[in-house]
Parts: sequence; structure tokens; C-alpha cells
Amino acid sequence: MCELLGMSANVPTDIRFSFTGLARRGGGAGPHRDGFGIAFYDGKAARFFHDPEPAARSEVARFLGAHPIKSLNVIAHIRQANSGSVSLANTHPFTRELWGRVWTYAHNGQLRGVKKLPLEFYKPVGTTDSEHAFCWMLCQLRARYKTLPPPARLDREVHRLSVELARMGVFNMLLSDGRTLYAFCGKRLSWLTRRAPFGKATLIDEDRSVNFAEETGPDDCVTVVATGPLTSDEDWTVIKPGTLLALRDGQIANTLHSEPQDAAKGVLSC
Amino acid sequence: MCELLGMSANVPTDIRFSFTGLARRGGGAGPHRDGFGIAFYDGKAARFFHDPEPAARSEVARFLGAHPIKSLNVIAHIRQANSGSVSLANTHPFTRELWGRVWTYAHNGQLRGVKKLPLEFYKPVGTTDSEHAFCWMLCQLRARYKTLPPPARLDREVHRLSVELARMGVFNMLLSDGRTLYAFCGKRLSWLTRRAPFGKATLIDEDRSVNFAEETGPDDCVTVVATGPLTSDEDWTVIKPGTLLALRDGQIANTLHSEPQDAAKGVLSC
Repeated sequence: MCELLGMSANVPTDIRFSFTGLARRGGGAGPHRDGFGIAFYDGKAARFFHDPEPAARSEVARFLGAHPIKSLNVIAHIRQANSGSVSLANTHPFTRELWGRVWTYAHNGQLRGVKKLPLEFYKPVGTTDSEHAFCWMLCQLRARYKTLPPPARLDREVHRLSVELARMGVFNMLLSDGRTLYAFCGKRLSWLTRRAPFGKATLIDEDRSVNFAEETGPDDCVTVVATGPLTSDEDWTVIKPGTLLALRDGQIANTLHSEPQDAAKGVLSC
Repeated sequence: MCELLGMSANVPTDIRFSFTGLARRGGGAGPHRDGFGIAFYDGKAARFFHDPEPAARSEVARFLGAHPIKSLNVIAHIRQANSGSVSLANTHPFTRELWGRVWTYAHNGQLRGVKKLPLEFYKPVGTTDSEHAFCWMLCQLRARYKTLPPPARLDREVHRLSVELARMGVFNMLLSDGRTLYAFCGKRLSWLTRRAPFGKATLIDEDRSVNFAEETGPDDCVTVVATGPLTSDEDWTVIKPGTLLALRDGQIANTLHSEPQDAAKGVLSC
């Protein structure tokens, strides 16, 4: 299975500590040898770093570990290929423009029959189930709204589409438009919020600690979402399957939930 | 004025030598202090490195100078802002997906009134004339062809659209879909092809030389397009205004020309 990492913050924040923990799993501590990518938002735009090389060996990952790129919204992914060959075209996160904003998406899991979903506007460049599902979501949003809708309405629509996709298999996903970071748990995803009083955190996959009290301001608020907890001495919350978190300015702005069995019947409880 | 650099090759080729010459102009030898970007194609996909920092000071540019990323098609741009603030959203090259391919574009010049051109499908993320022109070109291509047309037909259409834009001001442009690298000269653009017998080349902007005979294979063929010649001891050809070069596999596969005054009357001679 691939691993996901997302961050939402209320001040431009350096994600290197958490990314280091993730990158160690990319062919180092973990089996995810099939490339990695990371997107850093700056307003409505984002900059990307992709590498089909294992993150643990990647020169790009080493560069990112040495140079802080502060951002309010970040999506990172390390890949263990199950659908689609190892290539740049199949390396997450994927991106498209919608409503004059850069949308970014990363997924783990498998979706049976997803390639039968029709795509009107966006077409996959690679061959993964994941990119097809992303194109389908954006096609649906584009068909429904001419311009960026208010946050609460978009939250509900992203949850509805995520539940539809989750019916086809395993759908753990991170999605952002630079305003909101969406995290949908189909099976496995955890989160934590770092805010004052800040303490110490120690990576699980590498002998590295940081004292956030020395790194942050009193009003900083940062929420991190990951496939599994990255640190051993912080309180991570496991997200219930069927739940979408909408993160804005470093906090959970909205939580939408539907029981997977309800989802299977298409009944939403949000 | 911004500076452009493009490369088309028949074997994956390291562009660091030429890029070093360009990057030196990014706040070093030149006035282009307003960011840079570069796209490296791998099939239908591309990876991007953008930095709103001056290329001559950029850590990303330093990384690219130290680590070869070999590619068949490359587009690079260093910016001197004239339309749009200095920000990531306004940093070339710009990219969109069309027909399941990543399209990449960089421009220099200014286009009066270009923002009045209607955009049905693609919307700008930033505020530059350049990105608006790119969105318009892709909207036109998308409206005209449901799928990727044959090369010669697409060449003619890209030339027609380029001539339309050139009527609005200065339009020097690089555009690629991973199959073809298009180079349109509205005012200033030069090219050269490197093939056997290979010789020595010396950068104009930095005391650096390379002997391509030691770096290349006998069948390698690489064409480089740049705003101005980057080397002092090679034969660069200045492109006539109104001309589109379509580069495939390192060679000029097609040349389409219309005299600017004809272009002004909308008469094409291709």
C-alpha cells in the first residue's frame, strides 16, 4: 500500500520533519520503492517535486530534506505500485486546473472497475486507477459548479464523491485546491493537530526528534494527516472509515461521516 | 524581457550545460530576477521545478546544476516580470492536460488586450498575459480536435494560433506536448542542432566549456532553441519573425512561416 502525508497550517510551515519520517518508508523502512511526489501550495498555485526513484534513495528527496519550503497546504505520497507501471506519469500527487485553481490529489488503495467511470473533461496521462478516479472527481465537480462554491457546499460534494469511490474498493485520499485540504479515510488514515503548548516529537522511522516549542509561534496551528502515525510521542487520532476531514488554516473546519455500510447503499449521514 | 530555453533530442539528454548559461542570466549576468522554471518530459508526462527566486541565487537551480535529469523534451524560462506580480502562480512554464497529455508552455513578450480573449475550458491561475494566451491556445485546440491530431495538422494549427497572438504584441513562445517541441519566433529566438561530428562549446555567460564529442553517441541529435545564443563558438541560426519550428526527435520536422505584415492581415503562407 502507498503512504500519504498531508499538512494544513495557519502560517507557512516547514514540513521537513514529518516528510523525513515518510521518506524513510520509501524504500528505506518500508516497501514503497516506486517513486514519490510532494506538492507545496502557494495561494492558488502549487509547486511539485516528483521522482520515480525510491524516496529513501532520491536526490530530490535529499534536496527537500535540506531546504525548507514553507507552505500552508502540502500533499505528499510515496508509492508501492499495484495498478500502473513505475513511471513519472504514474507518480502521485496528480494535478489539474479547475476554476482557476491548481487541484492536487494523492490516493492509496485499489478501486475495482473505476476505469469504467466516464470522463468528460479531464483525461488520465498515466495508467493508474488513482488518476482515473481523480479525473472523475474533478469532472463531476466541474459539471456541478461553474465556479468555486462556498466551502461547506464543496465539502459535502467532495464527501459524496469520495463515498461513491470508496464503494469500489479501498479509497484513502488527500485532495486540495489550496483553500482546503481534504482527507478521506476509506480504511486507514490518522491525524494530529500541533498547537500551543508545543512539545517534543520523535519520529518512529528515524532517530530524530524536534521540540516544536523552539520552532513555532504561540498562535501557530498545524494539522498533519498520514496513513499511519509518524511520531511515537504524540497523540494521533485514527480516522473512522467513511469520514472526510476538511482542513482549513491548520484546523479541522468540517467533518463529514457516513458509515461504510450506509455508503454502500448510497445513504449519507452528513 | 524574459529568456526562453528549449531542447528536443532523439536520446535522453542532459541539458545542464545550456541551462547553466541560462540560469546565469537569471539575476546573475542578466536582469531576470523574477523567478524561473523548467519542465522535463518523460513520455506524455513532465516533471517541473519552479522557483520564484532569481535563478542565479536559487537552491533549486543549484540542485538542477548538480544532478542531471535526462529528457527528450525540455522547456525552461527565466522571468523578468512585466505583466503580473512575482509569485509562484506567475512563474513559467505553465502546464495543463489536454487529450491525456501534459502540455507545457513558456512565453516572452507582451500581448496587448490578450485578456479579452474568451476562455471556455482552461482558466488562468495567475495574472500574467502569458498564461491567459496559453489557456486560449489550448481552448482553441480542444474545441477543434477531440483527440491528438496528426503532427502536420497540429503544427499548422499551432502556427495559426501563434500568428494570431503575435498580432497583439511580442510573442516568442515554447510549447510542448511531449511529442513535439514548438518554438514560435515573434521577435527574437535562435536555434542550433548538435550532431556528429560533435565539437567543443563555450558558454557566453560563464567561463565553462564542454566537448560534446566526449559526452555523446554518434547518432545523438539535439536541437536547442533559446532567446539568444548561449555559446560563443557554435553556429546559432536566428529564427525569422513569424516562423514556427516543430521539433521532433531532436530535429526540425516542420517549419511554418508567415510574414509578420501578412500575419497582421491574417494571411498565412504555410
